[in-house]
Amino acid sequence: MTATATLLPIDQATFPLFAGIDVGGTNIKIGLVDDAGHPVAFEKIHTHQQQGAEKAAQRSAEKLTEMVAGLGIEPDQVARAGLATPGPMDLAAGKVLQPGNLPGWHFSPVRDLFSQATGLPVTFANDANAAAFGEFWSGAGAEVRNMVLVTLGTGVGGGIIIDGRLLVGAHGAGGEIGHIVIDCRDDATLNSLNLRGTLEGYCGAYGVLARARKALEVQGVRSSLSDLTDDALTPLEIAKAAEAGDHLAMSIILETAKLLAIGMASIIHTVDPESVVIGGAMTFGGDGHPLGERFLEEIRLQTTERIFESLRGEIHMDFARLGGDAGFIGAAGLAREEHLG
Amino acid sequence: MTATATLLPIDQATFPLFAGIDVGGTNIKIGLVDDAGHPVAFEKIHTHQQQGAEKAAQRSAEKLTEMVAGLGIEPDQVARAGLATPGPMDLAAGKVLQPGNLPGWHFSPVRDLFSQATGLPVTFANDANAAAFGEFWSGAGAEVRNMVLVTLGTGVGGGIIIDGRLLVGAHGAGGEIGHIVIDCRDDATLNSLNLRGTLEGYCGAYGVLARARKALEVQGVRSSLSDLTDDALTPLEIAKAAEAGDHLAMSIILETAKLLAIGMASIIHTVDPESVVIGGAMTFGGDGHPLGERFLEEIRLQTTERIFESLRGEIHMDFARLGGDAGFIGAAGLAREEHLG
Repeated sequence: MTATATLLPIDQATFPLFAGIDVGGTNIKIGLVDDAGHPVAFEKIHTHQQQGAEKAAQRSAEKLTEMVAGLGIEPDQVARAGLATPGPMDLAAGKVLQPGNLPGWHFSPVRDLFSQATGLPVTFANDANAAAFGEFWSGAGAEVRNMVLVTLGTGVGGGIIIDGRLLVGAHGAGGEIGHIVIDCRDDATLNSLNLRGTLEGYCGAYGVLARARKALEVQGVRSSLSDLTDDALTPLEIAKAAEAGDHLAMSIILETAKLLAIGMASIIHTVDPESVVIGGAMTFGGDGHPLGERFLEEIRLQTTERIFESLRGEIHMDFARLGGDAGFIGAAGLAREEHLG
Repeated sequence: MTATATLLPIDQATFPLFAGIDVGGTNIKIGLVDDAGHPVAFEKIHTHQQQGAEKAAQRSAEKLTEMVAGLGIEPDQVARAGLATPGPMDLAAGKVLQPGNLPGWHFSPVRDLFSQATGLPVTFANDANAAAFGEFWSGAGAEVRNMVLVTLGTGVGGGIIIDGRLLVGAHGAGGEIGHIVIDCRDDATLNSLNLRGTLEGYCGAYGVLARARKALEVQGVRSSLSDLTDDALTPLEIAKAAEAGDHLAMSIILETAKLLAIGMASIIHTVDPESVVIGGAMTFGGDGHPLGERFLEEIRLQTTERIFESLRGEIHMDFARLGGDAGFIGAAGLAREEHLG
């Protein structure tokens, strides 16, 4: 999930450029992306979130100015900026609300702050939605018009593209895929927002670990994971154990795939995409790794069983391609959409 | 669910008009709808499905010609027709596939047949999607831009409107709400398509009856429904028993509301509508009836518990308003969308 994009030489870029700014709790990723979706410059600065949003906007603007100068282009060749932050947010008002990893930014009018600092009009988006748009614009969804991105990590998030447009929703809650419900039981697992039976509650990192712990409690079960303390049990340790042949670890990973597929079936029967793209930090090795490929294959298999016969084989399911670059590229892409009107 | 629309006098209509044709297994509903969504004429003819689609197209066209003459208008004041049929269908090819209630129509090129018979360009749509568009255009969703219709009957169906446009999906399977999964258990109920744990499997008529039968089997349970034979147990009998104070019958209805709410939470976190509209034949009396209102109130309550705090109170949940007219009105509305381009 590191930045992997190759930068396009500026003399091959299509103008205008768009700035993409992807704010996380630790870093802010800043890129310049050309009109065809190719990054031409990329930098990462510390968020220093406790200093607040205004300072971060100023430092981001300074970095952007340096990047423009470094490319030897004029500032007015950058048409607009896209700003992605974690939710919750008030999109219409251009404000973040109370994102858990940005306490110093709570209720900041980030759209205006970044616009004033950069001198650019700013398009504001949810970071998971921006990542979805990035994959759609120049990643795993570049060949389709209808795509769903599902990101697996501490949380489960994502975004939905319908007929080439991001599904923002009436209240900015479109594509909140982690909060679809897969377990109707009254005693189903609660997630971090106290919502019961959600996809995130089972397939987010804490959900995976909770299922692993429960499986380890079964009397007589043999697993190398039994030797780990509660703190040492992580998705990465589960992946390592599975790769070393531990049956319980593998069964937890395959169960994760099955539970995810149950959520996928609901999304597919709701928005009917051409392509479902799986990203995030918890893909068990991801693309090109045997365990990641086995995980993806199980998602495909289990999803296929749960959807209309006429859809089987019709929906691509693949790993994301842009890794941690998806957010800033997508933010730039959403800025471009608004620029084009 | 009968036709309830008041017809607008033709001298108050806004032109052009659009024809809406809603094909069911028993009847074909044919209406003329003005440019503002008001029906100005309506007729119902028998489908006689065993005679095939071509004959039905001819009889529909004859009826339309009569209706136009009866209104005293010129044929060219009708700009386009919308044709809604049950799925599954190949929308792009303009064909029905194998709808269960139209065996005589299997694989018929209905779009072309109706176009040739009526002399009008034809917009082809799934009947549940057409009904959703009808409610959006001139029913319970007329004040919003983002709406979900859920229809409860033998099956559970619906349609989704995003930013004023019908979500058709990449393969015509958008808004197949009955097939979202609410129960991840390996032994969850199978529905008629052999899909496990779906909303339809629990909240479609057969699902409701299966839950009632199971509840009646519990030893010592007292219910007036116990006296009914298996054949005599229907959603209507459950409603009657609940109205007469039968606790088990009421608990089945409230459980239906809860399971439906679980599906609603998934849809809301996926497409984030302004309004969710509940229609279909199985609304336990529906709008204005005490039991229907209790059912709706329980859906609201249970949905609210399962969605983001920021969305609570922000999403309208109401009964559909157009009853059985939604399909032909929506088909006409979709024809109008295509006419406007």
